[in-house]
Amino acid sequence: MNKSPDSLKKEFEAIVGKDNVMTAEADLHSYSYDAAVLPSQAPAVAVRPETSEAMGKVVKFCNDNGMPLTVRGAGSNLSGGTIPEKGGVVVVTGALNKILEINAEDMYAVVQPGVVTAKFAAEVAAKGLFYPPDPGSQTVSTLGGNVAENAGGLRGLKYGVTKDYVMGVDFFDVNGELIKTGSKTVKCVTGYNLAGLMVASEGTLGVFEKIILKLVPPPQAAKAMMAVFDDMIAASRAVAAIIANKIVPATLEIMDNFTIRTVENFRKAGLPVDAQALLLIEVDGHPAMVEEDAQKVEKICKEQGATSVKVAKDAAERANVWQARRDALPALARVSPTTVLEDATVPRSKIPAMMQALNEIAKEYKLQIGTFGHAGDGNLHPTILTDKRNHEEWHRVEKAIDAIFDRALALGGTLSGEHGIGLAKSKYMKLECGLGALDYSRRMKSVLDPKGILNPGKIIGF
Amino acid sequence: MNKSPDSLKKEFEAIVGKDNVMTAEADLHSYSYDAAVLPSQAPAVAVRPETSEAMGKVVKFCNDNGMPLTVRGAGSNLSGGTIPEKGGVVVVTGALNKILEINAEDMYAVVQPGVVTAKFAAEVAAKGLFYPPDPGSQTVSTLGGNVAENAGGLRGLKYGVTKDYVMGVDFFDVNGELIKTGSKTVKCVTGYNLAGLMVASEGTLGVFEKIILKLVPPPQAAKAMMAVFDDMIAASRAVAAIIANKIVPATLEIMDNFTIRTVENFRKAGLPVDAQALLLIEVDGHPAMVEEDAQKVEKICKEQGATSVKVAKDAAERANVWQARRDALPALARVSPTTVLEDATVPRSKIPAMMQALNEIAKEYKLQIGTFGHAGDGNLHPTILTDKRNHEEWHRVEKAIDAIFDRALALGGTLSGEHGIGLAKSKYMKLECGLGALDYSRRMKSVLDPKGILNPGKIIGF
Repeated sequence: MNKSPDSLKKEFEAIVGKDNVMTAEADLHSYSYDAAVLPSQAPAVAVRPETSEAMGKVVKFCNDNGMPLTVRGAGSNLSGGTIPEKGGVVVVTGALNKILEINAEDMYAVVQPGVVTAKFAAEVAAKGLFYPPDPGSQTVSTLGGNVAENAGGLRGLKYGVTKDYVMGVDFFDVNGELIKTGSKTVKCVTGYNLAGLMVASEGTLGVFEKIILKLVPPPQAAKAMMAVFDDMIAASRAVAAIIANKIVPATLEIMDNFTIRTVENFRKAGLPVDAQALLLIEVDGHPAMVEEDAQKVEKICKEQGATSVKVAKDAAERANVWQARRDALPALARVSPTTVLEDATVPRSKIPAMMQALNEIAKEYKLQIGTFGHAGDGNLHPTILTDKRNHEEWHRVEKAIDAIFDRALALGGTLSGEHGIGLAKSKYMKLECGLGALDYSRRMKSVLDPKGILNPGKIIGF
Repeated sequence: MNKSPDSLKKEFEAIVGKDNVMTAEADLHSYSYDAAVLPSQAPAVAVRPETSEAMGKVVKFCNDNGMPLTVRGAGSNLSGGTIPEKGGVVVVTGALNKILEINAEDMYAVVQPGVVTAKFAAEVAAKGLFYPPDPGSQTVSTLGGNVAENAGGLRGLKYGVTKDYVMGVDFFDVNGELIKTGSKTVKCVTGYNLAGLMVASEGTLGVFEKIILKLVPPPQAAKAMMAVFDDMIAASRAVAAIIANKIVPATLEIMDNFTIRTVENFRKAGLPVDAQALLLIEVDGHPAMVEEDAQKVEKICKEQGATSVKVAKDAAERANVWQARRDALPALARVSPTTVLEDATVPRSKIPAMMQALNEIAKEYKLQIGTFGHAGDGNLHPTILTDKRNHEEWHRVEKAIDAIFDRALALGGTLSGEHGIGLAKSKYMKLECGLGALDYSRRMKSVLDPKGILNPGKIIGF
C-alpha cells in the first residue's frame, strides 16, 4: 500500500461517507482487540458502510490496494477472530443491522450481518417463532459474527448450533463480487454448499452481505431444574446417563464448586455454595413429554448421587436458574486480571474423564481453573484465572492449555466446540486435523483470496 | 494418458488386485449410466478397491496419469452424477461397505462410503437409535452417494436431509492424501467446514474414505394418515395450512390423481382412484403429541376441503400407506419408455402456486405429468412420462423442463431440492446462482483438482 493516510481517508470517505471513516487513535484502539486474551493490534482505519453496495466497494478497494480487511460485528468472539492486522482496515457492520424479512409461513428470516442476536431472537419470538442459537454474548453479538464463528450456546444439545440454521449466505468475494448461495427452501442442492463453507470461516473467504436463517416453531412448554451434587465426577456421570437414556434436554449445563461460589458472590441467586457441582437442566417440548422427561431426569440424577433436585416453580425461578448460568463468565472474569476461557470439547460419554483430567491439570500446574459449560454437548469451558503480567504463572497457563488440548484430543474430542480458531488456536490446528486438511484449506484460501487480504492469520495461519 | 489398455489394466491390478479390475464390455456398460435420463458413456476401466489404502492409491494413480475418475455407489442418483467421462475410470465403492462403529452412548456412527443406506438404518435401529434420512433409493443407495448428493427423502420436513447428519468426512484429495475433517463431538469449529463442503459436491472435490454420521433417539410413537381431496389446489393449501399451524409432521407427501391411479394399477393398495389428490401424513414423537397433532392435522385437512381423512389403525396399515408412496416412481416409470423425474423446490407456502404452474405447463406442452413428492418441504417431483425416441415430443419435454425451472425460481425456489445437479442440470446453474457463485466454485475446483480429474463435468460444468 503506497497511499498516504490522508488520501486513504478521502478514498474511503468517498465510498462510505465522511461520518463513517474513523482514524482517531481512540477509535482505532477500540477496534484493536476482542474478547480473546491476545495482544491488541490497531488498524490504520475503521469504516462503517451503511449500505451493501458500499460494503462491496470497500472490499474491492481493499483488495485493489492490498489492504488487509477484518470484518467486525461486536468483537465478542473469544479466539481473536476480529483482531485486525496491524495497519489494516476494520469494517464495522453496525450500520448493516436490518432484519429484511421474517417469513412466518415459510419459517425463515433474511438479515443483514450486523443484526444483534438477542434482538433478532426477540423479533422472531414476537412473530410466534423461535431462533434457538443463543451464544453467551447474544445481547451484543451479531448474526454475521455468529455465522462467521459458528456460534453455539446453551441450547446446542437439542437444537444444534448456528450452522444448523444457515439456509443461505450472500457474500462479497475478495473482488467485491456478490456471490449468492443457498435458498429460502428447506431443501436445496444447487451447487456446492458454499453457505456451509462460509459458516465458521471467520471472514477469511468472503464478506457477508445477507444471511437466510431457518426458524422453527417454539416449544409448547419448558421446565428448568437444578440438581445438586457433592461430587463433580458423579455430576458428570449423570450427564452421560441422561443422554444414554435417550432424553434430549434443550439445555444441560454443569458448574463446579469454584464457579458456583463465584457466581453466588457476583449476584445472590441462592445457589448452594457447598455443592461440589450443579447440573442446570431444561427440558422442553410437548407438555406431557416435558413432565415425563423432568421426572426421568430427576430420577437419573438421584440415582447418580444428586443430594437434591429442585424444579423451577415458575418463570421467575426458571429465569433465575439461567441468569445464574449466564453469570458464570462475567463472575469469574472479575476474580483475576486475566481470564482464559477454554473450549475443548469431547464426546459426551467422555465428560467424566475430561472433568477428571481438568482436576489433574489444575493441580499439576498449580492453577485456579473454574469449570462450567455445556456438559450435554461435551462442550466444557474450563476457565483459568490468572494474571498475564505474572510471567512465571503465565508460562504455567500456557502449558496447562496445551495439556487441556492434548487430553481432549486423546479422548476423541476437538480443540474448539464453539469459540472458533481465530488467531488464538491456529497454531494448534495441525494437532487435530493433521497437515492434510490444513494444506487443503490453504490451497482454497490461496485461490479465493490471492493477496491474502481477508482477515489474515485466522484459522489457517496466513 | 499414453498408457496402453493392457499396461493400464496391469497397473490397476497391482493396486486393487486382479479380481477387482473390470474391462469387459458388459461390465463397462453397466457402469456407463445411472438413474438420470442422459446418454450413457462407458469408462475404459472400472476398479473396486477393497481397502481404504487401495482407494487412496487409485486416486493418486488417476491424478498422476490425468485419468478422469468417477466414484460410484449404487448409481441410483437422478442427475447423472455417476455417469463417467468416456474412457475414464469408475471407482466402485461396493467393497468398502463396513460399518466401522455405532456408538450408542455418544450417538454417532462411522461408516465406509459403500454401506447401503437401508442396511445401515436397520443396524442403527437394532441398537435402539435412529438414522432419519431415507431417500427413495435407500434399499440400494450408499451412504457415500447420499453424502455426495446430499440425499433427501420422506422425512426431510421434520428431520432434515443427509447434510444435517454429517459430522465429519475423511476424504482423499486429488493427490491421494487423506484429509480428516469434522469430529465425533456434536460441536466442532476447528477449521473450515470441509465436511460441509464435501456434502453435495458429487465427487468433484475429493473421494470419501469414511463418514461420521449423527444418530438420534427414535420417536416414541408415530401415526400415519391419508387425506383425500377432490381438488389438487385444496390439498396443497392444506399442506401450507398444516405448516402455518406450527405442526411439523415427520412426513407430508402429496400425490395427484394420475399418480394415484398409476400406483393403484401397479399394486393394489386400496387407494381412492377417483381422488384428485391425496396427502399422506405421518406425525411422530411423544404419544400425547402424536395424538394431538393427528387430530389437528385431520381438522385442518377437513377445513381445507378433504372429503375424508383415514388414520392407519396398525403397523400394517401404516406400512401400506408408505409402500404406496414409495411405489409412485416405479409405477410411473412403467407407463412409458422414458420417465423424467424433476425436483424443483419452492418455499412451502408456494406449493399451491407451483401445483397450478405444473398443471398449466402440462397443458401448454401437451404432456402427461404425474406429480407427487415431499409437499411439506416444498419439494415436488413432477414426473414427465414420455419417449425420448419421439423427437418432437422430447423437444416439448425439454421446453417443459425449462418452464418448470423458470416457475420454481420465480416463486423463490431452487432447481434441485435433493436430486443434485450432476450433468443433468449443470447448464441451468447460472440461472439460480448467477455467474458469481459459479465462478467462485470454479476457482475452488481449479486449485483443488488442477487436472480436473475428479468427476469431470458435474455441477460446475468442467
